[in-house]
Amino acid sequence: MPSPIKFAERVDKNAIENGSGFSPKFGNDGLIPVVTQDRTSGEVLMVAYMNREALHRTIAIKEAVYYSRTRDQLWHKGATSGHIQKVAEMRTDCDQDVILLKVEQVGPGCCHAGYASCFYRKAPLGEEFAATADKGIAQLAFSEEKTYNPDEIY
Amino acid sequence: MPSPIKFAERVDKNAIENGSGFSPKFGNDGLIPVVTQDRTSGEVLMVAYMNREALHRTIAIKEAVYYSRTRDQLWHKGATSGHIQKVAEMRTDCDQDVILLKVEQVGPGCCHAGYASCFYRKAPLGEEFAATADKGIAQLAFSEEKTYNPDEIY
Repeated sequence: MPSPIKFAERVDKNAIENGSGFSPKFGNDGLIPVVTQDRTSGEVLMVAYMNREALHRTIAIKEAVYYSRTRDQLWHKGATSGHIQKVAEMRTDCDQDVILLKVEQVGPGCCHAGYASCFYRKAPLGEEFAATADKGIAQLAFSEEKTYNPDEIY
Repeated sequence: MPSPIKFAERVDKNAIENGSGFSPKFGNDGLIPVVTQDRTSGEVLMVAYMNREALHRTIAIKEAVYYSRTRDQLWHKGATSGHIQKVAEMRTDCDQDVILLKVEQVGPGCCHAGYASCFYRKAPLGEEFAATADKGIAQLAFSEEKTYNPDEIY
């Protein structure tokens, strides 16, 4: 029987930033944001959220388990599609209010829209804004190709 | 006089995910989370937040301008330290509720604690948890060296 996972209490700023006790900050909604990055390419794949139980499970099974805010339940990524994320490394930031996962993404991609990464569109910067705006509204540019047909998976 | 930056209205899910109108979702607190990545190494440097004005300014000046939740004001990163972030690329995700910046970080690092990245500690995974826990509490491992002395900058 493995020991239950406990986190350190968040007592003082110095301990949180310079100590080794893992004391993740869950917001008022009980969630912490999670950035998930491809361990090999470094590409940022997605941003999602975990509650305390999702973080416990991710640590325990070394696969990404998030908390779905729309479905209001734990979300073992890839449990139905097979596109799981094997967690190679987990980090937290200075004030321990963000989790970073470096994963091996199984399958053709992580995004339900059919792309390898959820960040498949670029936003305009500087002079690009005026050059590309449509009736004054900022326009995105598609910068990635789809890697699969989501209609065949979901 | 440059045209004012306007975003598209968030009307239907399909347009948000598959369209080109840039329609960032600001939460109930008026903020959108931002992941900032080194454009060359791919290293995730930090996660912060922008309000509408911070996003406008970032697009306009091509340097990262966040909204500081602790100081409750716009935060032009590096304005005092000189450690600005030149934005090479901006992306958004499928549901347009996250911004990704790929930046050139000027200076020795982005983290006020003295590190190149805010993610300088690893969390335990799987069997590592039991092997490293202290009185049952999960322990972080420092995985990066400091790149500067924050006492000399801030």
